[in-house]
Amino acid sequence: LPAEPRLQLGPGDDAALIDWSASQSCLMAVDTMVEGLDFTHETATLEAIGYKALAINLSDLAAMGSLPVAATVSLVLPSHDSLPTCQRLFEGMLPLAQHHQVALAGGDISIWEGPLVITVNVVGEPGPNGIWARQGAQPGDVILVTGDLGGSLLGSHLDFSPRVSEALVLNQSYQIKAAMDISDGLAVDLSTLARENQVKAVLQPAQIPISAAAYQSSSENPAGLTPLDHALQDGEDFELLLVTTAQERDRLLRDQPLSCGITCIGQFAVGEGLWAETPQGDQERVPAIGYEHGATR
Amino acid sequence: LPAEPRLQLGPGDDAALIDWSASQSCLMAVDTMVEGLDFTHETATLEAIGYKALAINLSDLAAMGSLPVAATVSLVLPSHDSLPTCQRLFEGMLPLAQHHQVALAGGDISIWEGPLVITVNVVGEPGPNGIWARQGAQPGDVILVTGDLGGSLLGSHLDFSPRVSEALVLNQSYQIKAAMDISDGLAVDLSTLARENQVKAVLQPAQIPISAAAYQSSSENPAGLTPLDHALQDGEDFELLLVTTAQERDRLLRDQPLSCGITCIGQFAVGEGLWAETPQGDQERVPAIGYEHGATR
Repeated sequence: LPAEPRLQLGPGDDAALIDWSASQSCLMAVDTMVEGLDFTHETATLEAIGYKALAINLSDLAAMGSLPVAATVSLVLPSHDSLPTCQRLFEGMLPLAQHHQVALAGGDISIWEGPLVITVNVVGEPGPNGIWARQGAQPGDVILVTGDLGGSLLGSHLDFSPRVSEALVLNQSYQIKAAMDISDGLAVDLSTLARENQVKAVLQPAQIPISAAAYQSSSENPAGLTPLDHALQDGEDFELLLVTTAQERDRLLRDQPLSCGITCIGQFAVGEGLWAETPQGDQERVPAIGYEHGATR
Repeated sequence: LPAEPRLQLGPGDDAALIDWSASQSCLMAVDTMVEGLDFTHETATLEAIGYKALAINLSDLAAMGSLPVAATVSLVLPSHDSLPTCQRLFEGMLPLAQHHQVALAGGDISIWEGPLVITVNVVGEPGPNGIWARQGAQPGDVILVTGDLGGSLLGSHLDFSPRVSEALVLNQSYQIKAAMDISDGLAVDLSTLARENQVKAVLQPAQIPISAAAYQSSSENPAGLTPLDHALQDGEDFELLLVTTAQERDRLLRDQPLSCGITCIGQFAVGEGLWAETPQGDQERVPAIGYEHGATR
């Protein structure tokens, strides 16, 4: 591969960081949603699909402590009902774009006899104190998460609020050492974060914020997963997973600056893998299993 | 539609201009190519498809006097041979990206049982003297074109050179008042330019640079179009259509700063529509017919 002198951070992170003018950087994120793979019309309205296609990109930028500026939308539309399909996708997308002052800057429309394919690309700029990457965690740092986890399949995977304004608040006023968003589930994503930082992640299971939907998912299938399992394994929470120092955590938990809440769920230590502290003070392995992208839901 | 305060120029132009930081703007272009609509495997190799998907975006940015910086690539791949398909698309794209120092900044891959869909999004920055828009032509201004026109279906629509460095040279050293790239054919695109500027375009047919491929296309079907017809009507030339003053044209034609050549092919006047000057000095209408996107070739 050729050297890419203007690319500062690559595909490993949630978005790519581009060296822009002397004083400025640009971030880019892209996500494609494909009918039959990422959604079906039985389980999602067109408005919800449009909303989600933009929201997952906003979450990618928020996960890097950056602010969305503009988006392009590329649609491959089934020929039957292509115009109302397009309108309804945009009706889902526009309020979200407006809320976050993201300019819908154009796009591309193709019409064919195949399924719906929607690609959204968002560009953004670093937050006031620069971007967050996945690298940056050290033993002794602590692990924080916004909001509640689990049960997204009951609906929140379609209408979640990307943590854009929360990322701005944290970027402005707190020192975040590393971050990502939770798309594959806490267990998988935190394992990734630990591995990429060559540290061990130790969860305090009792501290993990479990959503009402996780309880509901568990109660609907009593033979299946516990609410905690859902919080660990369900994907598409799109909450922020954040790393900071113990001192900064104390300030954050005292301030509680986010209306969605922010919780300390564990810490990093020397070692590797994902672990949970037991009530007896021992540590046991947590399997890095969870949500698999590509399942139709 | 909501106000989009940061969007300075919209979908009417070849790329969108985004108000970025205080001192900087960002341009975005996006194009999707769909198997069966925009290409077939019978008429294009995977390398050529990858090349073209990036090249059309670079041409969009060049048409606005701007420079590409980074691209994202989103692929929806048929499940059979998805890995070699991906590799071959990138093998077509990488040398072009490298040549223009465009960072391939990441992307998204989906795998399904359907046809190939490739979306490329390029961000860029204004040339040293700012961007060119489609608006800006006045009666008395002249019409210039880079390179030669026509016959792209014989091959150049797949391996054309986007006029990136040419746009930079022109942006640096000459005053360009308006510009676009020729994707639908000279007749269609120049009609659009005249309409958007509320002026009349008058071509000097003898001055139009006709490509060897246009002559070949004509000779292969003697009952069909003339070489000039091909230059007027064939799409996907991806040459730059430029507007400047008569004085600046004289300087440009004297300097001849582009190795691909630059030619004056007519002027704008008070009125409307697309016209050609006859050898007798009269003017006759030129039909705005030409290339239709969406034809499989």
